[in-house]
Amino acid sequence: MSTIIYPENTSPAADAEAIRKACQGWGTDEKAIISIIGHRNATQKKLIRQAYEELYCEDLVKRLESELSGQFEKAVYRWILNPRDRDAVILHVAIKERAIPNYRVVIEYSCIYSPEELLAVKRAYQARYKTSVEEDIAQYSTGHLRKASFFLFFFLVFLPTFIFVAWSRCLCLIPFATYIQFLVGLAGTYRYVGDELNARVANSEADILHNAISTKDFNNEEIVRIISTRSTTQLVATLNRYKDHYGSSITKHLLDDTNEGNKEYLLALRTTIRCISDPQKYYEKVIRYAMNECGTDEESVTRVIVTRAEKDLKEIKEVYYKRNSVTLDQAITNHTSGNYKAFLLTLLGNE
Amino acid sequence: MSTIIYPENTSPAADAEAIRKACQGWGTDEKAIISIIGHRNATQKKLIRQAYEELYCEDLVKRLESELSGQFEKAVYRWILNPRDRDAVILHVAIKERAIPNYRVVIEYSCIYSPEELLAVKRAYQARYKTSVEEDIAQYSTGHLRKASFFLFFFLVFLPTFIFVAWSRCLCLIPFATYIQFLVGLAGTYRYVGDELNARVANSEADILHNAISTKDFNNEEIVRIISTRSTTQLVATLNRYKDHYGSSITKHLLDDTNEGNKEYLLALRTTIRCISDPQKYYEKVIRYAMNECGTDEESVTRVIVTRAEKDLKEIKEVYYKRNSVTLDQAITNHTSGNYKAFLLTLLGNE
Repeated sequence: MSTIIYPENTSPAADAEAIRKACQGWGTDEKAIISIIGHRNATQKKLIRQAYEELYCEDLVKRLESELSGQFEKAVYRWILNPRDRDAVILHVAIKERAIPNYRVVIEYSCIYSPEELLAVKRAYQARYKTSVEEDIAQYSTGHLRKASFFLFFFLVFLPTFIFVAWSRCLCLIPFATYIQFLVGLAGTYRYVGDELNARVANSEADILHNAISTKDFNNEEIVRIISTRSTTQLVATLNRYKDHYGSSITKHLLDDTNEGNKEYLLALRTTIRCISDPQKYYEKVIRYAMNECGTDEESVTRVIVTRAEKDLKEIKEVYYKRNSVTLDQAITNHTSGNYKAFLLTLLGNE
Repeated sequence: MSTIIYPENTSPAADAEAIRKACQGWGTDEKAIISIIGHRNATQKKLIRQAYEELYCEDLVKRLESELSGQFEKAVYRWILNPRDRDAVILHVAIKERAIPNYRVVIEYSCIYSPEELLAVKRAYQARYKTSVEEDIAQYSTGHLRKASFFLFFFLVFLPTFIFVAWSRCLCLIPFATYIQFLVGLAGTYRYVGDELNARVANSEADILHNAISTKDFNNEEIVRIISTRSTTQLVATLNRYKDHYGSSITKHLLDDTNEGNKEYLLALRTTIRCISDPQKYYEKVIRYAMNECGTDEESVTRVIVTRAEKDLKEIKEVYYKRNSVTLDQAITNHTSGNYKAFLLTLLGNE
């Protein structure tokens, strides 16, 4: 359920006028901006953008970008955009605008969003950036991930004398192509969304996954096939069968491998499984890791709160409280500050 | 351009009645059926199906299936369905209903259809078969393609003493995962469809492709990335740069490898490039190979004629005549017979 508190009947023109007023003169009245846009849903925000454009022949998004700054500006920018544009921006930042791409975001969108929602995000991405999500993932993963294939290359080319001793280990290393194709496959697959599931397939694929994982054959193409193409309903059944038959969740078993060359790929697999099994629990974990003693990863905090505020942030808050014995509002209060904090708390449902 | 000849103003009810009459009594009047449905476009056929259902409380598609037989029935069945349902049926037959899957069809749909058309086919496929195209490709490729990975397994596990001599050869063999992910990637990628292209990328990716192909490094992840994710406009530019710089087309260079284990994957790559570069020339080749001295592959002939009749069959006929110095109509007359022949000739624009 949504956390934002918004009045049913609002006047887009009056809202636009109030925002304009908050932006004029010396300094910006951030509190006034928060009090308006923090209490409007997607449709209302769209109408405000339109009214603002009509009244002042100016793009509200650009105006807010120039008036605000820091994490507060980033959060407002994402919030004021229409949801699919916002998702396109978040994906683009994650894939192309960071020194190290954040593939967790790709997995999040691919596995938590419905195929139709994902498709709408892809359309918005193409319209905005003139490339496809898939080609950007594929292209921009190159540099970052090549280190995984480096291990394979090293063992096979420079140390041929080691092959006999190390061959079984080599087989466990995940080639670059598998990882990249896994990510592109996840983002590309238009999954079946119906409720139909095949119990026999769930049993046999749980066994296939277990055989591959217990022998550390992570490069097994069956893992990629099952996780990247099956419907969510089918996959959840498979994961449940896995737990029933083998006493522990697949994500726990994936932790058994400590090979550095496999680390990122196995993390991607675990993230995928978490997103599919329990999105709210996954988001709770993202926020928990983003706010710790070493500092705060505002990008992740903003992403979760802004993208989920009108969807299931209420449930995420409950999961967070159960797991941490502290409310998410309190955690946000402790780890953020200023207008940014005030804005996030507003989206979390504080009046 | 379309080849079918159809009157602008038709009466769906009268057509439905005439078809009903042709199906009643002893024997079926196939000629009457051809004279109606062979001269109707997609919209008209849809209205006939609706009128038939309303008038006789019976599904026209099922009735025709039970009245007709052989290749003629298969062709009529595909023709009478709405285009996206027909595509779903053709894809399903190619992936799941044959002893050896025909991946050429997957590549055809993935590369020749626009992303929106492909998406509509995927929706029809899900509605009809309750699975996604991607998971069926991934699942049903397994048995057939495992022989490719068998080579790798054989060299690495059973003949370790051969590794030093054969390692470079081993590296050239394409693992199963690469092939399967290539097909799933092709079908999954929602390509960018705009006209924007990056000339610098076209140059550099032509070089990347050439380096991989000239060193027979077909397993290079860059080949898969470039071919399965780039927009058609961008890929055509890359293929042209390749030809400009290296004097020959990439498909010719892909023929240089004679390794049996790579055969199918390289064929898939060549098919993909042909579909992207020149769809009409590709379809001409499919028909030419389908009608030769050893016999006729009616499934392929039907597929091309039925799916292209309302699109670009006129251009395909022209390409066919230029290449073979015989008209496609004449070739069809020589290689097919009976009602099947009469029906195909009708779709080819014969009165």
